[in-house]
Parts: sequence; C-alpha cells; structure tokens
Amino acid sequence: MLSARPALRTLPSYHPPLAGRDGLRLDFNENTTGCSPCVLECLRALSGEDLARYPERAPTEAQVAGFLNVTPAQLLLTNGVDEAIHLLCQTYLDPGDEALIVEPTYSMYRIYVMAAGAHVVGIPAEDNFRFPVEELRRQITPRTRLIAIANPNNPTGTVASQSDLLRIAHSAQSAAVLVDEAYFEFYGQTLIGECQNSTNLFVARTFSKVYGLAGLRIGALVGPLEQMLTLRRVSSPYNVNGVALACLPAALADRDYVCRYVDEVLDSRTRLERALQSNGVAYWPSQANFILFRVGSAQAAGAFVERMHRRGILVRNRTNDLGCEGCVRVTLGTGEDTDRLLSALQETFDELGISRSQPQGAGRP
Amino acid sequence: MLSARPALRTLPSYHPPLAGRDGLRLDFNENTTGCSPCVLECLRALSGEDLARYPERAPTEAQVAGFLNVTPAQLLLTNGVDEAIHLLCQTYLDPGDEALIVEPTYSMYRIYVMAAGAHVVGIPAEDNFRFPVEELRRQITPRTRLIAIANPNNPTGTVASQSDLLRIAHSAQSAAVLVDEAYFEFYGQTLIGECQNSTNLFVARTFSKVYGLAGLRIGALVGPLEQMLTLRRVSSPYNVNGVALACLPAALADRDYVCRYVDEVLDSRTRLERALQSNGVAYWPSQANFILFRVGSAQAAGAFVERMHRRGILVRNRTNDLGCEGCVRVTLGTGEDTDRLLSALQETFDELGISRSQPQGAGRP
Repeated sequence: MLSARPALRTLPSYHPPLAGRDGLRLDFNENTTGCSPCVLECLRALSGEDLARYPERAPTEAQVAGFLNVTPAQLLLTNGVDEAIHLLCQTYLDPGDEALIVEPTYSMYRIYVMAAGAHVVGIPAEDNFRFPVEELRRQITPRTRLIAIANPNNPTGTVASQSDLLRIAHSAQSAAVLVDEAYFEFYGQTLIGECQNSTNLFVARTFSKVYGLAGLRIGALVGPLEQMLTLRRVSSPYNVNGVALACLPAALADRDYVCRYVDEVLDSRTRLERALQSNGVAYWPSQANFILFRVGSAQAAGAFVERMHRRGILVRNRTNDLGCEGCVRVTLGTGEDTDRLLSALQETFDELGISRSQPQGAGRP
Repeated sequence: MLSARPALRTLPSYHPPLAGRDGLRLDFNENTTGCSPCVLECLRALSGEDLARYPERAPTEAQVAGFLNVTPAQLLLTNGVDEAIHLLCQTYLDPGDEALIVEPTYSMYRIYVMAAGAHVVGIPAEDNFRFPVEELRRQITPRTRLIAIANPNNPTGTVASQSDLLRIAHSAQSAAVLVDEAYFEFYGQTLIGECQNSTNLFVARTFSKVYGLAGLRIGALVGPLEQMLTLRRVSSPYNVNGVALACLPAALADRDYVCRYVDEVLDSRTRLERALQSNGVAYWPSQANFILFRVGSAQAAGAFVERMHRRGILVRNRTNDLGCEGCVRVTLGTGEDTDRLLSALQETFDELGISRSQPQGAGRP
C-alpha cells in the first residue's frame, strides 16, 4: 500500500479563504488598485509565441538584481515567496533538524518545515507581539538549520530591529536565517545589503503586495553567493512563468505608482488607527499595509468578519493564530477604500457593541 | 558554517540552453505556432485587479477535471509538470528510498529524486530504446517508492504498452508510479482512466507542448483520490499563477486549434522520417512531436546543431544522454516549418557528409 512519508502524516492543511472574494478585498494584503498600468500594457503586447516559449529567467533576474543593488548571482527569482521558503526548507532541512519560527507568523513556514520532516520550534512573541529576541537566541542549538522571520511580521505588523536580526544570524552559523521582507515598502528598512557580508543570511522580497502582482506569482530570494549556487541547482529552471518575467521590469520601472500607493496606505494606516483609538479598540501599531486589532471574543471576531462581508468588505479572521483570540486583520488601501472601510467599521462596531465592550483598553495595547 | 543537506552535495545541475533562442525553435518540443488566439483574447481581457489577486485554483481545476473526465478531487493543477514530479518526490521519497527511471529520459526525474535524498536506479532502455519492462520489474524492491516513466518517452519518442505500465503499477504497490503523458496528444493512448482503479498510479499532463503554453507553466497531475488529498496538502495553495488559470479554459475550448496542429505535426513527422531514410540516417520511430536521430559521432552532433543554428534553426544535441552518442532531437512543427527544416537539413547533411558516412544503417534502426 502506498503511503506518504511519515513526516507528512501530521501535516496541517492551509486553506486560505480564496473562494467568492467579491467586494472590497482587505483580506490578503494585496494592492487594492491592482498593478501599474504599465504592466497591463506589457501584458497586452505579449504574443502567442511568447506564451509558447519556455520562460528564461536570467535576463529578468539581472534586472531585478540591479534594482535591488545586488549581483545577479546573489538573487533567485521564485514562484512567489512561498517557493523561496520551500526551497530553503528543501535545501537545509533533513528529518530531525530544527527550525525556529516566532508565533504568530505566516502559516507556510510551519508547513514547509514539517513537509521537510524537520521539527518546528515555535517561539511565542513577547507581550504585545514584541519580537522575542532573547528567547529565540536561547533556542538556537547545533541542530537549528533554519530560522524564518517575517519582518514586518504578518499578521501582527510588528518588527524586529535590524541589529537583533543580525545578532541572530551571527549566533546561528549552521542555520539559514530568512528575513522575509514581503512588506518592506511600507516599512523602509532592509537587510538586503547585509547578505553578501554574511554566510547564512537570506532576504525574501515579494511583488505580490505593493506591486499588485499576486496573481503572477513572483518573488525574489537574495542570499550569500555560495549558498545561492546550491539553491539555484535545487530549483527548477522553469519555476517562474514567462508572463511574470516579461511584466516585472515594467512594474519596477513605474516607481511613482508604488510610491503613491505607499503614501496612500500610510495615510490610511493613520486613519484606521485613529478610528480604533476613538472606539477604544485594542490594536497593534503596524509597519505593514494592514492592522491587527481585537474586537473581543473569538465569536465576536467571527461576527465582525461576517457583518463586514455583508457590507461588501472582506477582512481576515485571525482568531486561531497564537495570541490572536478575537482578532481580525484588515488590509489598508487607498483613501477611498478607507472611507468605505471606516464607515462600515463604525456601523459594525456600533451594531455589535464592540467599542462599548472595551472601555478600559482604549488605544494602543 | 551553513551547508546544504548531504543529499544535495552531488546534485547535478540542469541548464537547458534557453538563452538567445532566435530562429525557428525546434529544440524544446514547443508548439511552433504559439498558443490559440482565444488564449490571447483572454489574456488581453485581464485587468490590473485580476493580476493583483492571489490566484484561486479550484474553479479552473474543476474545468480541467471535466475536460479529462476525472473528478476534481482526483486532479491537481501544478506549476508545469516539473512541479508534479517534484511534489511526488517530496511526498513519497525519504533519504535511502529507491526510485526507478528508464534511461535515457527527461532529466528532471533524476534531479528531483536526488534532491529528496533518494537513490536513483537507472534502468537502461533495451536495444533501439525499447521499454525495458522485465528489467524494470526485476528491480522493484520493498524500498522502491517511485517509478517515473515518460510515455511517449523523451528524447526517444518510444512508448511502453499500456498493459506493461499497468503491470508495473500492480507489481510496485508501495511505489508511486508516474506515467508522464506530456506528449499524449501526438500518441493518443492514455492511462488517465485507470488512476481511479489503482492505489498508486499517477498520470501527468502538460499544457506546455501542443497547447503552446510553456510560458504560462501549467500542468495537471491525476491520481488516486486518497493520494491526491496528501499531495494537495504538500503543494502551495498559490502554486499556479492567475494568468494560467484564467487562460487555460480558453485553450481547452479551442479543440480545433489543437487538432489541426497535431495533424500538421504528424504529417511533418512522416516527412522527416522519409528525409532521414533517404539520407540513410538512423532514427527512432517516434510517437511524439520530435524525432531523435544519429548523425554520427558526438563531434558530428555538435557540428550538426551548430550548422543548423547558422541556418536559423534550433535543434537539440542529445549526445550526452545514455545511448544517444551522436544523436540530435528535432521538434516537429507545421508544414511550413518542415519545408524550412528539410531544406536546411539536406544542406547540412551534404555539407557534413552525414548521409555518406552511414551507408549501411539506412532507415529505421
């Protein structure tokens, strides 16, 4: 009888709620305005022959490397950041190895580590989701082969300092240390320049968020030269599709589009914070394009998501994440999106009596 | 010091010659006319918002399942067939396990098996690349966890009988048996209907070849229901990009486009066979959209590919594949492509004295 590898028998499944996403989509941290019109122009200029050819990654890889100010040999384009995480797990983790993650965080770290047969050591965030740097360093052992940190973190929006991250990379010389900078553009600090001075530090970037290209599946992994040689051998030469490769340079070239969108999101972030404060709703200050806040019990979170949906706005229930009971995560979009969001939010808060239920916990937790 | 898993230290690299592919591309078994115009229409109708959304696989998966006459739960769309192979290796192979492949065959089977830390048992094809069914069955052991067979095989174009393949699946109950039907449309026989009656038989299909969608990266894996549940958990929910998911239904709906192209290719196959016969060049009768033939020594193969390139036609040197010394593989395209091919072929044969060098080996090997 055919059976899967023992490591997979306890693998949890990850079913993001992708079906029937009609309305204002503030649930997946996407760009609510779509991608740059320059990308669409580029897409529409593709020929039938372009689609029929096996994709060639190298020319786009060189352009992205130039954009990120690293050498092409240091960079690998991947089928979204998911593939970058997966590739690191496959390259460094054998059954019995340990991988450290901070919790709560992006779900796929745990899944890919488990799929490699390695042991997940989950380190709970400190109070108010502060980065648990000391506990994380204490948990590093000779068996630690991967440390995956989203910075800013998802779903909390909190950050670790650059110096703490570098100390971790330095203390874990036999581990690959991944700093996943999917939300970099809303935060502004990066460790990408440190990869070449390190033997074990990797930085991932995505084009799914602010660039509005989640549908194209393209991300980039930057790391030490010697390690990238191995990762390149493990990855498929055809991992990234030709449409993404053809369109990405147009997306990178339209810097104004990204800058303007970031400005709008930062403004929206302030507006949502104020609305949460004025309703006495606990939230966590975010360095990303979303805010996590607590509406009350797990049940209240469910009701909140459902009522917002009825009002045409999709937000994400995070009540099952560690320490997030009763919490929802809301993506920030344009000013217009935020007008709609705040009006629906207020109606829903009032309807569910959410502000009244937390009189003492006003403002920042 | 960070080092890759031991299994990866001997991993060969696969560098397909993708750069600078100008000319008539008869080197990657692609559709030389590109994809159906209906696909382009669909592509051009995509909005910026469509590109910005995380792809949702399920609706297209249901349509492909209908097209292939299997249930949606039996089918998984993958980032090209490469990902399907990779996923099977990850799901069933632990270090020390054995995987059987017939040689020569598609290079990525070996690479993904090695990446999983398993042992590749390569079984040489019989004379004239006949499928080595008895030897393959003899090599099945309790450690055999994967058997990967391309049918028709690449780069030889030869086939295994459906009954031999079923016997193998039946004899290897603790192995996943993958029948990779990437060239199905040029052959016409499939085992897809047998997957639901089997506990370990998988069939892969690609949309990169006759459908002309190699650039979009989309393939399908069909297998026994219970196994597919596990494979779905191991795969990323975002593995296939949204453009491929949006365009594939249009490609499937334009059956005429595919049928007409297959007819042209089959006609071209006969024409190339005749040209090879009349030049006394040894070739192997093919059930796919390419023909492998022997031009002489390894050096002659290199010279042949280079001279064809100078004449604007890309063909593939297969001299390093087991048993393929001095062989090249040429993709078949439309009648017009074949006019160009045959004229360049004849000039090159004459120039290199290839027909004269093999007076006794005329026709089929």
